[in-house]
Amino acid sequence: MIVAQPLTADAFSAFGDVIELTDRDSLTINDGMCQRHHDLAHLDFSDGKAGISLFDGKARQFPYSLDLVERHPFGSQAFIPMNNVPLLITVCPDENGHPGTPQAFLARADQAVNLHRGTWHGVLAPIGAQGLYAVVDRIGAGSNLEEVRFEKPYRISAPNSTNQK
Amino acid sequence: MIVAQPLTADAFSAFGDVIELTDRDSLTINDGMCQRHHDLAHLDFSDGKAGISLFDGKARQFPYSLDLVERHPFGSQAFIPMNNVPLLITVCPDENGHPGTPQAFLARADQAVNLHRGTWHGVLAPIGAQGLYAVVDRIGAGSNLEEVRFEKPYRISAPNSTNQK
Repeated sequence: MIVAQPLTADAFSAFGDVIELTDRDSLTINDGMCQRHHDLAHLDFSDGKAGISLFDGKARQFPYSLDLVERHPFGSQAFIPMNNVPLLITVCPDENGHPGTPQAFLARADQAVNLHRGTWHGVLAPIGAQGLYAVVDRIGAGSNLEEVRFEKPYRISAPNSTNQK
Repeated sequence: MIVAQPLTADAFSAFGDVIELTDRDSLTINDGMCQRHHDLAHLDFSDGKAGISLFDGKARQFPYSLDLVERHPFGSQAFIPMNNVPLLITVCPDENGHPGTPQAFLARADQAVNLHRGTWHGVLAPIGAQGLYAVVDRIGAGSNLEEVRFEKPYRISAPNSTNQK
């Protein structure tokens, strides 16, 4: 059993960026009425261009069965939550072109994430309710998807034992 | 008094894109568990690159006083709502380099918008509560901001007369 961890920038840094409010990189704009937290993700679309799509994903729950991971060799992929649903993010280190042992993170609804180009990750997993996400990723030619299906699925449990079923 | 209109793609098309779920441009992914509504905005960052920032904006209310508009000559700018707060969007047609008479739209919390490069618009105006938005805009060198302050502010009222104060 893999226990999901609360999502933090430090813990996630090998896989991508956590896009969240901090006390850094903030500029006051709009006559003092708005703080701009500037340029929080490392975007990389190789030979393609940036696009914004919407992902409308069915609800999942804990314990979660992770049987499929994928990666996008030609671009980063950011997920911005739009309807206050926490997102389970599963990622794997790359081991000679194959996904290693997964790690799992549970993002709060006020955290977006940007998966770095080529990061192995599970599919969209909104927890407890249908989830709507704006996705910033590469628009371009060619196949930008590699998939690996695990012979034996990993079981992922909630961060807090009190939330486990 | 300018009455804000509900935001629709048709009404907004001269100014930008409405990023929302429709029955078009949808691909089934993730073993059938997710619909990808593909590439819904016309992004243009000229000589710069795409970035994701967070805007944390103070609450505004109706009737709203519009005294300042701005535009970004070198890039489009998308606003993705993250905390379920409706956004008042004010835009103006360009008239020989100056902003014409404003139009106002109220976006639902499940609608994101992308202002086309160079569109005159008011500053961030979350209605009724502090608003958190992921912003996809140009990261690059040079001054990408023109501002115009109206001598006499425009008054903007809520879409429904029952919501007016």
